[in-house]
Amino acid sequence: MPEIVAILQGNQRAGARMIRLLEQGKLEALTLLKQLYPHSGNAFIIGITGSPGVGKSTLIDDLITVFRKQSKRVAVIAVDPSSPFSGGAILGDRLRMQRHATDKNVFIRSMASRGQTGGLSRATKDAAIVMDAMGYDIILIETVGAGQGEFDIATLAHSTGIVRIPGTGDGIQAVKAGILETGDVYIVNKCDRPDVDASVHALTMMIGMQNMGRQTSHPSPKWTPPVVKTNALKGTGVDELADTFLSHFDFLKKHNLTDQTKRNQETLYFKSLLKDLTLAKIHSFMETSPAYKSVLKRIQTHEMDPISAAEHVVNTMIILK
Amino acid sequence: MPEIVAILQGNQRAGARMIRLLEQGKLEALTLLKQLYPHSGNAFIIGITGSPGVGKSTLIDDLITVFRKQSKRVAVIAVDPSSPFSGGAILGDRLRMQRHATDKNVFIRSMASRGQTGGLSRATKDAAIVMDAMGYDIILIETVGAGQGEFDIATLAHSTGIVRIPGTGDGIQAVKAGILETGDVYIVNKCDRPDVDASVHALTMMIGMQNMGRQTSHPSPKWTPPVVKTNALKGTGVDELADTFLSHFDFLKKHNLTDQTKRNQETLYFKSLLKDLTLAKIHSFMETSPAYKSVLKRIQTHEMDPISAAEHVVNTMIILK
Repeated sequence: MPEIVAILQGNQRAGARMIRLLEQGKLEALTLLKQLYPHSGNAFIIGITGSPGVGKSTLIDDLITVFRKQSKRVAVIAVDPSSPFSGGAILGDRLRMQRHATDKNVFIRSMASRGQTGGLSRATKDAAIVMDAMGYDIILIETVGAGQGEFDIATLAHSTGIVRIPGTGDGIQAVKAGILETGDVYIVNKCDRPDVDASVHALTMMIGMQNMGRQTSHPSPKWTPPVVKTNALKGTGVDELADTFLSHFDFLKKHNLTDQTKRNQETLYFKSLLKDLTLAKIHSFMETSPAYKSVLKRIQTHEMDPISAAEHVVNTMIILK
Repeated sequence: MPEIVAILQGNQRAGARMIRLLEQGKLEALTLLKQLYPHSGNAFIIGITGSPGVGKSTLIDDLITVFRKQSKRVAVIAVDPSSPFSGGAILGDRLRMQRHATDKNVFIRSMASRGQTGGLSRATKDAAIVMDAMGYDIILIETVGAGQGEFDIATLAHSTGIVRIPGTGDGIQAVKAGILETGDVYIVNKCDRPDVDASVHALTMMIGMQNMGRQTSHPSPKWTPPVVKTNALKGTGVDELADTFLSHFDFLKKHNLTDQTKRNQETLYFKSLLKDLTLAKIHSFMETSPAYKSVLKRIQTHEMDPISAAEHVVNTMIILK
């Protein structure tokens, strides 16, 4: 299987091809992924999340530079919320991180949403497995955080960095979005803006409250998420940020938390695969089902309401072990 | 069925109870919803979407005031991205829009994510049907927009307003998020900030580009999304915003686009119901499946990789018509 060998040797073209196949939801690609799987599990996966406009791409660009100076091989998955009309990421790889484009030890992919619920999260995990098997030391995953409740970066990454900018209501908004609960590192970017200290203070206070809650349920090793100030455009604070992420990884390894994380992630990955494969099976069944087709027509002509229609179709299906 | 009668009479307690049941994914609630369904379809549904911190809640608060002055009955669904750990919206109804709390013609519900992919979108649609049947003239749905690719507000609302604030990179970020494609009205809030004109200009330009693209595919009636400047904290521009939404609704009705919208929405709702009901059926099957349980154990002990495990379980399922 030369394709697998090429991927394991780090061939970027072969890797990109494989990721595309997986992203398209091709079931054949899973056969290849199964063979790569045993070669994964070595990379340090970092999630970088935050609202649009907070400077995630620029920060990642800076982090690549820092990690490359340490001779680490770096991969990036940029998860763009895609247009439901165009069906793909708009900017894609081209505009991103051009200065690393010629570095063979940097591999950047943009994921378009497959339009399927849950699909994007699984496609990202699939891509991370491929990059991991290709031998990248660090995988950075960029996601739009708040509101993306369906896409829980914490289930994919070892370490999650949440990027915020001063003056956008850190306090109540963060609680609302529930994002404090999944951050391992908090990043206040654009730290030349006013209100930066208020932002850092609000975050620190909330982390403190968070930790009080944690203490009771997890008495053992406790990581207190640090707040790091950066100015991505100038590159300020990015060395410290990279160090902070690496310290967190060391912390996880020291306390054997990477194994536990891996087990949890594998179970979640299994469940999402199972759901996808089941839905694929049902979908192909529906395409040939006369009941499905006739019901769809009756909704269009208002002979049947959507709820009764769905119940009707489900009742025509029998599932046997 | 007194509960149905109470809801149709606009009883808020009965409505809230019903929405809660639906949100919890109770299948029994669908039986009730089927009876309400024929009484829905009269409300004007407006989506208000944007990143955390742009002032959506305050804008909605202002819009309620304006619509109430016009003697319209107003319902609000606030879709909070919820914490994966707490399993519910954190602030909920309490902190929101307190000044309308005693107005019997205002009905506000907060939706917590059900943690299920697709679930939040369906639960919101369910709630909108209930409110619609209760006789509300206007239903405002507040969602965190960008990044929430899974939750497409355009499939629920007649009119979608996208809220932005100046100085957060309207240009490239909007394209990245693909949000320009689903907006019917663009709102530049906090219009007392600097850069407001640049934001309006960037949006107007992009809408122009958008419309050029639209012209070729839809030659018939064309709505050019207006850009409205508001300052929600002071209430500035909100009268104009309310008028803009109502004009859009008139436009849709005049060109018979509401029927088409309804048909599309019903088909999507049917598909999401079908998916949910199918997954519920499969889930209950899995809970009793020995194959599922044994495989889960083998993943935990690393005897089996998650991909092979998922394939194995799916292969034990047979679906008959």
